[in-house]
Amino acid sequence: MEPFLGQNFILHTAAAQRLYHEFAAPMPIIDYHNHLSPQQIAEDHRFDNLTQVWLYGDHYKWRAMRAHGVAEDFCTGQAGDWEKFEKWAETVPYTLRNPLYHWTHLELQRYFGIHELLNPKSARKIYEQASDLLRRPGFSVRGLLRKMNVRVLCTTDDPTDSLEWHRQIAGDPTAGIRVLPAFRPDKAMAVENPEMFNAWTFQLASAAGITIDNYDDFLSALKNRHDFFAQNGCIVSDHGLEQMYVEDYTSQEIRTIFGKIHSGSALNATEILQIKSALLYEFALWDHEKGWVQQYHLGALRNNNSRAMRTLGPDTGWDSIGDFRQGQALARFLDRLDSENQLAKTILYNLNPADNELMATMIGNFNDGSTPGKIQFGSAWWFLDQKDGMEKQLNALSNMGLLSRFVGMLTDSRSFLSYPRHEYFRRTLCNLLGGEMQRGELPGEFEWVGNIVQDICYRNAVSYFGFGE
Amino acid sequence: MEPFLGQNFILHTAAAQRLYHEFAAPMPIIDYHNHLSPQQIAEDHRFDNLTQVWLYGDHYKWRAMRAHGVAEDFCTGQAGDWEKFEKWAETVPYTLRNPLYHWTHLELQRYFGIHELLNPKSARKIYEQASDLLRRPGFSVRGLLRKMNVRVLCTTDDPTDSLEWHRQIAGDPTAGIRVLPAFRPDKAMAVENPEMFNAWTFQLASAAGITIDNYDDFLSALKNRHDFFAQNGCIVSDHGLEQMYVEDYTSQEIRTIFGKIHSGSALNATEILQIKSALLYEFALWDHEKGWVQQYHLGALRNNNSRAMRTLGPDTGWDSIGDFRQGQALARFLDRLDSENQLAKTILYNLNPADNELMATMIGNFNDGSTPGKIQFGSAWWFLDQKDGMEKQLNALSNMGLLSRFVGMLTDSRSFLSYPRHEYFRRTLCNLLGGEMQRGELPGEFEWVGNIVQDICYRNAVSYFGFGE
Amino acid sequence: MEPFLGQNFILHTAAAQRLYHEFAAPMPIIDYHNHLSPQQIAEDHRFDNLTQVWLYGDHYKWRAMRAHGVAEDFCTGQAGDWEKFEKWAETVPYTLRNPLYHWTHLELQRYFGIHELLNPKSARKIYEQASDLLRRPGFSVRGLLRKMNVRVLCTTDDPTDSLEWHRQIAGDPTAGIRVLPAFRPDKAMAVENPEMFNAWTFQLASAAGITIDNYDDFLSALKNRHDFFAQNGCIVSDHGLEQMYVEDYTSQEIRTIFGKIHSGSALNATEILQIKSALLYEFALWDHEKGWVQQYHLGALRNNNSRAMRTLGPDTGWDSIGDFRQGQALARFLDRLDSENQLAKTILYNLNPADNELMATMIGNFNDGSTPGKIQFGSAWWFLDQKDGMEKQLNALSNMGLLSRFVGMLTDSRSFLSYPRHEYFRRTLCNLLGGEMQRGELPGEFEWVGNIVQDICYRNAVSYFGFGE
Repeated sequence: MEPFLGQNFILHTAAAQRLYHEFAAPMPIIDYHNHLSPQQIAEDHRFDNLTQVWLYGDHYKWRAMRAHGVAEDFCTGQAGDWEKFEKWAETVPYTLRNPLYHWTHLELQRYFGIHELLNPKSARKIYEQASDLLRRPGFSVRGLLRKMNVRVLCTTDDPTDSLEWHRQIAGDPTAGIRVLPAFRPDKAMAVENPEMFNAWTFQLASAAGITIDNYDDFLSALKNRHDFFAQNGCIVSDHGLEQMYVEDYTSQEIRTIFGKIHSGSALNATEILQIKSALLYEFALWDHEKGWVQQYHLGALRNNNSRAMRTLGPDTGWDSIGDFRQGQALARFLDRLDSENQLAKTILYNLNPADNELMATMIGNFNDGSTPGKIQFGSAWWFLDQKDGMEKQLNALSNMGLLSRFVGMLTDSRSFLSYPRHEYFRRTLCNLLGGEMQRGELPGEFEWVGNIVQDICYRNAVSYFGFGE
Repeated sequence: MEPFLGQNFILHTAAAQRLYHEFAAPMPIIDYHNHLSPQQIAEDHRFDNLTQVWLYGDHYKWRAMRAHGVAEDFCTGQAGDWEKFEKWAETVPYTLRNPLYHWTHLELQRYFGIHELLNPKSARKIYEQASDLLRRPGFSVRGLLRKMNVRVLCTTDDPTDSLEWHRQIAGDPTAGIRVLPAFRPDKAMAVENPEMFNAWTFQLASAAGITIDNYDDFLSALKNRHDFFAQNGCIVSDHGLEQMYVEDYTSQEIRTIFGKIHSGSALNATEILQIKSALLYEFALWDHEKGWVQQYHLGALRNNNSRAMRTLGPDTGWDSIGDFRQGQALARFLDRLDSENQLAKTILYNLNPADNELMATMIGNFNDGSTPGKIQFGSAWWFLDQKDGMEKQLNALSNMGLLSRFVGMLTDSRSFLSYPRHEYFRRTLCNLLGGEMQRGELPGEFEWVGNIVQDICYRNAVSYFGFGE
Repeated sequence: MEPFLGQNFILHTAAAQRLYHEFAAPMPIIDYHNHLSPQQIAEDHRFDNLTQVWLYGDHYKWRAMRAHGVAEDFCTGQAGDWEKFEKWAETVPYTLRNPLYHWTHLELQRYFGIHELLNPKSARKIYEQASDLLRRPGFSVRGLLRKMNVRVLCTTDDPTDSLEWHRQIAGDPTAGIRVLPAFRPDKAMAVENPEMFNAWTFQLASAAGITIDNYDDFLSALKNRHDFFAQNGCIVSDHGLEQMYVEDYTSQEIRTIFGKIHSGSALNATEILQIKSALLYEFALWDHEKGWVQQYHLGALRNNNSRAMRTLGPDTGWDSIGDFRQGQALARFLDRLDSENQLAKTILYNLNPADNELMATMIGNFNDGSTPGKIQFGSAWWFLDQKDGMEKQLNALSNMGLLSRFVGMLTDSRSFLSYPRHEYFRRTLCNLLGGEMQRGELPGEFEWVGNIVQDICYRNAVSYFGFGE
């Protein structure tokens, strides 16, 4: 029996082991999409204890705890940090086979050197040991990133953001890491709620220094922020969508729709689709103009529990995988841009694994030979961020496209302790490739396969996003 | 080469073998959903021959025979019992890789001690040997259940059922098994056909002793039966649905719709959705009030062959897996109940494996910490009731929820010979867990993993349904 | 480490190896659906170089090259044959894990005896060596087919085709192979574009020698060609559809719709669905009448890149997998025919693997016992034509139907070098079966399993299509 999480975790053949240890493991990390706090990086924040860095804001853990029968007070509520940790430690042994079980112990090992299993018996000791380390200088957020060899990271930012922390980091010679913003204008498209939309529009006007009276002003203000993001190093945009919006519309219709919502009136279903479609298209034009990479996260069914939405707000663990129709709208959206020579480099992230093959073939429709891997099928995302999900995405991409041109893994995480997921991905990738070498389904040429592994782990992202420039 | 169906069938590692033999195998069986005949249990029925217990009513076998080119006469028709068996025996070797091949030989082994393969050569001998045993006292239906260590079973019953057989069994100190009814009001929702609906309504009125003149009467009569089922030990309801119904409606609309169908008029599509939505909601309130577990079987596309429907009726093997949209309606239905604090413990059974991940994440939206595993993703069902289907369900649940809180297997069967499917499930479960222990993807701690295996095989169901009370 | 593409490629157990080498490998090939040129077979064409036989018309390779960043000029454009090959050779090492990598090297081995890996270094040598062989008599198209032991093949033909080449081959005693046409009336249903439709109708009138003034004439002309195809040995039809069309219609409506398009007017969405539904039904009646096998290729989302469609036309690599709703329409279509006793033998090919289980269960609804495996779930198709795709199709079919009655593999290819895909399929099949024998999930009886392997590889197709007659 292999030791748990040993040196050759997920590496089931000698070839896989060699690929990982010799080629993949030494590569630095580029984390081109996550939800980390730039302020904490700028201030080189230190956490007071393990609960703060590990449980605050982690909806994966909260969902597991709720399924285990733990009351909300210990998830997002008023319980103390130790009490929350204690409940988490009770839950951990019941998470076996969930990625949380692997992530938890990988994170304890890689950051804190703790090889014990977390459970009620070991909870106190682990809590104290890790919390004690977290209060030391080497365990500041920059220290944690340095430990994981993270070179570049892209956060996810609202267009109204001042980017003050990104600028502070950029001006700090001691930072040791590039922290770039990403333009995520989801709130510009959240037209379902006029009141919230208008409040946000007001913020946008203020950030852009532009009075917003009509759709043209609205676009100008957004464009102003897009430019501002670019001036501050931004090279990627991002969108969270159920599915792509490609409703027909005229400019005049959009102006009227904007006028309607701007005056506080609710839009009907068609109007909502039309203005979303118009905005998505405009954003894509700007992304193409600047040579950015545009990212689309497709397929989440969000905020399903209205009671929790009222009391806890979004991103607290009440989302799931949807079964939206993706094919035709996605094809039409990309085709509209492509036929006007306006299609930027694009990454499609898919949340429903039933659509993996659709996505893996969709990207091939818009690879025009201009850039290797121009359209990407993004890494397994959110609920799929485990060995099975990664293998399915890697297999679909391999079977229907070019794995070798894949820009690889990202954390998409809110936690500074999530970087072992890159290791997890690399092991999974090497295991697939090594297994096939071992079985004679790939040639046993380590230099060649190892180079492709390194491309996927690091070099493809550098050249695709242009981080080397 | 391993012997066929040997001791370590589906147990590919030493760890899997230990988990199964030491922990899983000794656990009793709780079969909380099936279609067995309570009358046959009450009367402790004995079958005259193997065809009667094995081929009568088994649409799985009929479908295989038809695909093999066997005429209907030998499936559901007038051919003699031996002739039917002979055709089945001809078909069996052609079922390799279908679960029928495994089930057939497991059932011959476990119930009759027959280790020969069934084929035209062995048919006569096996038929006689098994039929001879079936006529002995130890092979009555209670004997068959006893052999399999079945402690509790829940049948599936129409609200008009008198439950006389359940009551007889409950009053029989020699029964040696708890046989509980389940409330399945599908016919109350079958409003597509006014004539059949009204005939059933008439039966319902009679069973409830309530004159049904309007919707309120209809609901009262149904509630009366719900109460009556509860008085007779019922603790679960069940619904067979293509997808969840959550059409908007007002009470007044539903009253009007009921009036329309009650007068013999056909409903339009919207009216059908509205009254189904209203009824589903009412049933859910009652289930919550009584602390029952509500079960939803989602995704079957039924009665596709109208010629067979006319001549043979439903449940004769002409159904298939549908591709209905499940996500949004399911979320809205559960949310409506949850936001009113009316959401009972719920099990979602999914027939299309493309929706496994959707289901596995949906349950997480309504686990509120009140009960471990409050919302369950039910075991692989019907067409998915084989190793691949079970593994997919177990993997989706593991990756996106808590496998450890799973209430496990049920037969959903019409046959007293189906209980080796529990063994099949247990082997598959132990094989997954043992394989991961062996490869270092789980710690090699047999007490802990073995206990979780036992929870899933038995203890979770006891506490979730409250069978221990 | 196993040698790459060695003797036991994809055969991971001793049982799998024995099944393949002893039973599967010796069987001849029946390729009952492909897109080969009957003219090239009639003329026993010889290719001038490897690019002509390998890269001309191969949209799989073009898509990979485009994804690799190769300009269109080297795919479908004006670059020279050697320059195109050079770009392909640069791309090949980046196709690892894509079926192209296996196909490429299998084809080099099996046809040319070249065991070197194709890459920029080996490109020149391989190009010259293979091109030199191609110019020799044994490497004419008939020579290539003979090498692969191909006995029968069915091309894919427009109803207006004169079938002159098929007739020439049939009359040529030296041909050594049966080459049959297949009736593919996609253009008769392409009513979206009145101009193209009417131009095609004009060709049809000419081929049939019937003036087409109305729908009845149109049907008569089509029927005339159906008969003509039958006279020339045709026994299969084929249709490429997004999903099945089963819109309600009356004869009068269809006559009006035809009149409208015949006069050059565009049809609305409902009219398009109605006339497609009417035609599909008529074709199915004729297929049944003649005892043909009807094939439906379902689920492709075609011509997504309008820029490429304008410049390069269809079938040049801009298609993908769609997510159409398949279940209900398919059931209704088959049921309509079945309930009128007009359902021909039918093969359903599915492009979206998320629908595999739906398809595998759908066929069971219309197996009436008249013919073994009457309704077939066709082999993994197009994007799914690799080990993963094949395994998924084989597993779905096995779990939900009778693998043993499967008519097996076809190439669906435009290239004479694609026949190793049959070997690929056979190895994958034997690997699944052999693996289960080895693990005790199937009995270790080689005669029985080996016979079923041979049935699937050859004999089932002979008897299902009636090639032996």
